Amino acid sequence: MTKTQSFIIENKERFLSELIELLKIPSISANKEYKKDVQKAAESISDSLKQAGAENVEICQTNGHPIVYGEKIIDENLPTVLVYGHYDVQPADPLELWDSPPFEPVIKPTKIHPDGAIFARGACDDKGQVFMHVKALEAMIQSNELPCNAKFMIEGEEEVGSVHLGEWIKQNKERLKADIILVSDTGIISNENPSITTGLRGLSYVEVEVTGPNRDLHSGLYGGCVANPLNILAKMISQLQDEDNRITIPGFYDKVEVVSEEERAEMNKAPFSEDAYKQALDIEAVHGEKGYTTRERGSIRPTLDVNGMWGGYTGEGAKTVIASKAYAKISMRLVPNQDPNEITNLFQKYFESIAPKGVKVNVTPHHGGEPAVTPIDSAGYIAASKAMEQTFGKKPIPLRSGGSIPIVSLFEQELGLKTVLMGFGLDSDAIHSPNEHYGLFNYYKGIETIPYFYHFFANENSN
Amino acid sequence: MTKTQSFIIENKERFLSELIELLKIPSISANKEYKKDVQKAAESISDSLKQAGAENVEICQTNGHPIVYGEKIIDENLPTVLVYGHYDVQPADPLELWDSPPFEPVIKPTKIHPDGAIFARGACDDKGQVFMHVKALEAMIQSNELPCNAKFMIEGEEEVGSVHLGEWIKQNKERLKADIILVSDTGIISNENPSITTGLRGLSYVEVEVTGPNRDLHSGLYGGCVANPLNILAKMISQLQDEDNRITIPGFYDKVEVVSEEERAEMNKAPFSEDAYKQALDIEAVHGEKGYTTRERGSIRPTLDVNGMWGGYTGEGAKTVIASKAYAKISMRLVPNQDPNEITNLFQKYFESIAPKGVKVNVTPHHGGEPAVTPIDSAGYIAASKAMEQTFGKKPIPLRSGGSIPIVSLFEQELGLKTVLMGFGLDSDAIHSPNEHYGLFNYYKGIETIPYFYHFFANENSN
Repeated sequence: MTKTQSFIIENKERFLSELIELLKIPSISANKEYKKDVQKAAESISDSLKQAGAENVEICQTNGHPIVYGEKIIDENLPTVLVYGHYDVQPADPLELWDSPPFEPVIKPTKIHPDGAIFARGACDDKGQVFMHVKALEAMIQSNELPCNAKFMIEGEEEVGSVHLGEWIKQNKERLKADIILVSDTGIISNENPSITTGLRGLSYVEVEVTGPNRDLHSGLYGGCVANPLNILAKMISQLQDEDNRITIPGFYDKVEVVSEEERAEMNKAPFSEDAYKQALDIEAVHGEKGYTTRERGSIRPTLDVNGMWGGYTGEGAKTVIASKAYAKISMRLVPNQDPNEITNLFQKYFESIAPKGVKVNVTPHHGGEPAVTPIDSAGYIAASKAMEQTFGKKPIPLRSGGSIPIVSLFEQELGLKTVLMGFGLDSDAIHSPNEHYGLFNYYKGIETIPYFYHFFANENSN
Repeated sequence: MTKTQSFIIENKERFLSELIELLKIPSISANKEYKKDVQKAAESISDSLKQAGAENVEICQTNGHPIVYGEKIIDENLPTVLVYGHYDVQPADPLELWDSPPFEPVIKPTKIHPDGAIFARGACDDKGQVFMHVKALEAMIQSNELPCNAKFMIEGEEEVGSVHLGEWIKQNKERLKADIILVSDTGIISNENPSITTGLRGLSYVEVEVTGPNRDLHSGLYGGCVANPLNILAKMISQLQDEDNRITIPGFYDKVEVVSEEERAEMNKAPFSEDAYKQALDIEAVHGEKGYTTRERGSIRPTLDVNGMWGGYTGEGAKTVIASKAYAKISMRLVPNQDPNEITNLFQKYFESIAPKGVKVNVTPHHGGEPAVTPIDSAGYIAASKAMEQTFGKKPIPLRSGGSIPIVSLFEQELGLKTVLMGFGLDSDAIHSPNEHYGLFNYYKGIETIPYFYHFFANENSN
């Protein structure tokens, strides 16, 4: 991989400026207003794949946003790496909390990234990480060092639940034949402590609507006489967790995988400073399920969070109104053996059961996702571990993550393929938040590491 | 009052079209963007007073929105009625729930108002009711039947807590000398059952802010590990009331006036159909403090309501975020002997005390107001009762109301004057809500009744 690595060094500046162009496209999949921009991002990815030397590049239309496919087959008898990623991004609001506009990328040094980080929505999640793969492919092809076949499948609906990916995969099983799926949409512990994500939480996401009176009322005349949807919603949300911060939905924990004491002990050895964690977030105390550490709460335990809540008068000053409706978006992170549909049903049943007379409740499920675990003795994991050891000079730690990439279990189910989650982001990258950024160190480290993955994976599989 | 009543009948159409012009001005005092419109409404009221025949009409500037003053002194030795009202209105949002634009008045019949009602923000609260007084004054002056002196004080900040009225009153004590204050900013039970408001609840209004982590976080990575401000706010709000819907703030009920069993029995005799009430609001059950009827809950008991609540992602689709901040606007209606400042302090202390470690809490008081009660044996009450009996053909019922007109206790304190609350609105008028309206029956009944109030009050006081 010597020529490949030289190519990367020689083209560093260009690799960065090309990423910056991609980051300027506001490809927000959740908002219909940005439909054209999502399409534009797909075209940009398609062009980059062609530029890298990929063949049969195609923007595959779906009933939603398109999926970009491309491949480089050098020998049918060699193993094939299928890269998955997404070019769509989260909404950027609240805009006023960004130090620079989300779609006008700027490079600035930070405490953690003294060499600079790119600030933009999608810088890390996932345009920056997808682009590492495209550029690594380019480096290998242009240096004539691609050691096996490569296929790319980059979608535009990850942030809205990969709505049309499943169907497309079913229709393209032949084209997607591969030996491993490689995804960079996760992170490492720190730039000094590489890690590989071996577990992902599943997701159940619902929107609830509580309706009281059929119209907004004057709180002086009706206050105390009718169920106020905002008070009721607050109370119902408070009833979803008990004093120990355990979720109270009947049956919620029934199928939760019990992690052994040994694995928990191993997990808690990973470098983690609770003081630094609290300081970084400016909080006085952590908060979570009794009996578990912060690392455990964020990985092996299921959780419930309100992601949005609204109703009534939210403008300047005071308005004495009782709102007719109150709303919340609520998500639950799930762990192995919990089924998202079952959990959504349990939530709905319980939430309806705790509604007092005097309000009506409506629960609408959004997308969900299955939990997933990658075995550390699989060929893919071993190749990723060796690749990172090569470039970081340190063996990566296997780690369960709290996030969800619902498509991982879809890949296993539809394509019979294991997924390796070799991501390069940091917890502090503020993905899904204002001022999302991605370290230049991490971007380049990713481009540098990926070719070694191909190398070790090709070697493993030809043995 | 024969000539006055004839004048009213002859000028009905004009009285209506003039009100419609006033209702077109979006004089929203809470929103700075409407400052010019608030001024324009003040000018319109001033012009109407001059047109009515009032003298010394003046738009008195304050540090906020102006107060319109005008008077008609016919004889220093006769009693003086001081009319108070407001020309500012509540914000009109949510705009999408209005059937016609809030500042483009339309007249339509309704079930309750077969003769038509004017739909517009402020139609009832309080432009329509203020305008009844201006037109009644005009009818009496133009008919040469004004039986005593009249003074008008119409402010533009009632909906934001009458911020500058107190100071202005202190500076104008001489000019405001009178024998009674007459206010139409309340309602009657129904068009068939007139009533006079004898009690008003006080108000304490606060805005709370709960801050968790210093930035929005990804709920997958941080979910279950940190205090989520939205979950915490919901829990804290739920802790403000117990299972019996009693307010849990320590000391909250300490000074609450205990209403005698006799008065409660009397109050519960007033015509009220709980079935019709539930049907009108499309609710399956009423909801409130255990041990009290709906009438009692809405008048003699203090209450607590969330008027607005917001935080996190509230847009289309799903966003897996933990918000850094959550907010709520919370108001408490108070009953006699409860002090708004004391209650606000008790709230603040309690709310801060129930915040878990891991969040910071900030409580900002908005305007408050004292509770007030009008004795039914006062000269003002007796004159109002006789006037209503004259025009409705039925003696009005004295009734405690759940609303607040904080300035009533201010008048008593600064001017030593009692206030009579002779309002003509209905509960169903949707004040503070979309589709606010005011019955033409009520508008004209008000104009017709007011001159009789002057008549009976002048008679009472000269005896």
